[in-house]
Amino acid sequence: MNDLNELLTRREKLLGPNLPTFYDTPVHLVKGKDVWVWDKEGTKYLDCYNNVPHVGHCHPKVVEAITKQASTLNTHTRYLHEGILNYVEKLTDTFDHNLTTAIMTCTGSEANDIAIRMAQTITGSKGIISTDHTYHGNTALVSQLSSTNPSNDKLFKYFKHIPAPDSYRPLGEGTSHEYSDIFALELEKSILELQKENTNFAGLIICPFFANEGFPKLQKGWLNPVQDIVTKYNGVLIADEVQPGFGRLGSTMWAHDFIGIKPDIVTIGKPMANGHPVGAVITSNKNMETFRNSYRYFNTFGGNPVSCAASLSVLNIIEEEKLMENAQSVGDYAIKGLQDLSKVYEIIGDVRGEGLFFGVELVLDRKLKTPAKDITNKIVNEMKEEGVLLSKLGINYNTLKIRPPMSFSLKNADFLLEKLDKVLLRNKI
Amino acid sequence: MNDLNELLTRREKLLGPNLPTFYDTPVHLVKGKDVWVWDKEGTKYLDCYNNVPHVGHCHPKVVEAITKQASTLNTHTRYLHEGILNYVEKLTDTFDHNLTTAIMTCTGSEANDIAIRMAQTITGSKGIISTDHTYHGNTALVSQLSSTNPSNDKLFKYFKHIPAPDSYRPLGEGTSHEYSDIFALELEKSILELQKENTNFAGLIICPFFANEGFPKLQKGWLNPVQDIVTKYNGVLIADEVQPGFGRLGSTMWAHDFIGIKPDIVTIGKPMANGHPVGAVITSNKNMETFRNSYRYFNTFGGNPVSCAASLSVLNIIEEEKLMENAQSVGDYAIKGLQDLSKVYEIIGDVRGEGLFFGVELVLDRKLKTPAKDITNKIVNEMKEEGVLLSKLGINYNTLKIRPPMSFSLKNADFLLEKLDKVLLRNKI
Repeated sequence: MNDLNELLTRREKLLGPNLPTFYDTPVHLVKGKDVWVWDKEGTKYLDCYNNVPHVGHCHPKVVEAITKQASTLNTHTRYLHEGILNYVEKLTDTFDHNLTTAIMTCTGSEANDIAIRMAQTITGSKGIISTDHTYHGNTALVSQLSSTNPSNDKLFKYFKHIPAPDSYRPLGEGTSHEYSDIFALELEKSILELQKENTNFAGLIICPFFANEGFPKLQKGWLNPVQDIVTKYNGVLIADEVQPGFGRLGSTMWAHDFIGIKPDIVTIGKPMANGHPVGAVITSNKNMETFRNSYRYFNTFGGNPVSCAASLSVLNIIEEEKLMENAQSVGDYAIKGLQDLSKVYEIIGDVRGEGLFFGVELVLDRKLKTPAKDITNKIVNEMKEEGVLLSKLGINYNTLKIRPPMSFSLKNADFLLEKLDKVLLRNKI
Repeated sequence: MNDLNELLTRREKLLGPNLPTFYDTPVHLVKGKDVWVWDKEGTKYLDCYNNVPHVGHCHPKVVEAITKQASTLNTHTRYLHEGILNYVEKLTDTFDHNLTTAIMTCTGSEANDIAIRMAQTITGSKGIISTDHTYHGNTALVSQLSSTNPSNDKLFKYFKHIPAPDSYRPLGEGTSHEYSDIFALELEKSILELQKENTNFAGLIICPFFANEGFPKLQKGWLNPVQDIVTKYNGVLIADEVQPGFGRLGSTMWAHDFIGIKPDIVTIGKPMANGHPVGAVITSNKNMETFRNSYRYFNTFGGNPVSCAASLSVLNIIEEEKLMENAQSVGDYAIKGLQDLSKVYEIIGDVRGEGLFFGVELVLDRKLKTPAKDITNKIVNEMKEEGVLLSKLGINYNTLKIRPPMSFSLKNADFLLEKLDKVLLRNKI
């Protein structure tokens, strides 16, 4: 604890206050390998949370790609270099419609910051709609999209929020209306509200998996009515794939393919280069042309040869190690295991997820679905003590968020399930 | 040329149109080492332009630091890690007043995006003033500070510009007024204009070396009247050190020390980790507290152990290789050489710079100081053909911008001067 206290004191002095750490007693990590991380004392943890080390902590092929390129040349895109072209070519090949052109950035935040301006430039309108429990990044512009990370400074009057989808507590339950139609109707209402305020609709930005919203269970086609409304009002659909992309859902490379929408703009980030700072915006050549002719956008580090080499290695590793197939089979196995636990533990109200993004929603009462927020927090902390890193999220912060590196194995899933069983038993209500 | 044309076609297809390259015939770089870069055909160029590879292209110690940490652990600041603390400690030790606390980002743009919000949060006001020929980054917020990189979308009504300083054509020349007072008066006028529009003054953001403005020759103390006006109106002074920082000016680590101001907030980026994407905002603990309590700012990649290791290695190399001393002596030598050339070539209207950031302003007529914009462009391109990479900037884009890696030697300076002599002779007017 002396070590931790000393670190926390230095941290507050050097980084400032009000900078949360994970867990009641923070973890001081010193080493990572594949799905495992180690703290200063040598305690080993199964990483069931971090999606940034997408192909596994410190994957040797990513390190090699970075080392090789960093030793050869690192520069910017005012010179010609094949690295960015080879990467963008391979990346855009993974999209099944006209998303053929990209801007590379250093973060998902920068990507969304561009995507919003791109939507506004394409449409000539300003109004942007997102859900009321989302997060799309930290710039002045995109931080305004989040009602969950509020700032004291509302710069933008033309952002509106619609109620985040919740498959466990669907709006309109018990009525004859389909939830997907109700959700689309909320979007239309917001568009009309914007219009009343003399702001035309520019676009909708959503994570197609609604990761921050608690990854509700939505079948393919659920967002079709939403896509129709966006089209009806001449808006642009932005899919923020920062969390669910790169094959995490197992059966598809991108969450927008999983749910079956065709976004006009896709943004990516976190897992893209296994932790090396990189992000991107992908759109059609036509949209890119409109944006490029309106903005003289240049990003010094964006698309540098090292970032491109790191990013390319991640795409290659996903293929070579069949990580999507792994995500699907291990994810299915883990969800089955969670469903089995839900038969034993009343507190598990809902089990859901796809591929290696899954979790359980904990409730005090299955009928009333009362969120077990405090217990969820307790379980997250106790799982850490048991050597398993995971987290919580969702509209009520009562959903265990499990999102391990893509090399997560059946054995790892067993370890997770065993420890969760132990912790749930201890907290049985 | 086939290779270049093919690359340019692929580039437009994959990255979009209107994405400028340097030089009339772009350079296809494949290798870099110290102050040298090589193109695909094996042609070697002396890099007199790039400040991002601050300690030299592909410096082996930076590569080693990145490789070592990327093989050990790369994660985010929700876990404790000593890397960020050791770096911020060493970084803030280079400041001579109360700039003791930092936020690490991935780009200078992200750093300035925070700095603006920080100034607004600290003061409770909105009005931000910059010069009319500056550039502070590419986010939606900070791109609005630049009148040189205009967008079709004025999001912010509370940004004002003041005329960029120009030591070669000083405002008020021939009057009894000191230029530094006139510049400060322009600031005050802008603040009063903001107030008339019911916007209070939050802060002034400047590069203390006015790098994009053409690095005017301003003696120590020149910005004192500006600092007084900022204080008088309870504003915040932001020093954007993205270009002149990290010892580039030779005699001081930071340009704000060189000119003698005490900024409330400093932002850094480009050279910080020799090309690895990283930036930072540095301020007092009190200012950080105010910001941290108003914004739930988190940056996934910001301050990750690899970025910190790379950044730390750059600070170490600057010391170990005495790069500031080198910048001063080689810079002085180069400026002396340029002054000698100005005795031969009428077109050289002004020679200026500090350390390894220097250049010459080219004019058609020394008396009228008519900017030789086209010839400047021609010279930049011909220098490239001679194996020297440099660029142009300034209010009239007629100033040769020379800003090589910090390991630039006397021999390199001779090579540059020799080639410049040759190209100037060919273009003698």
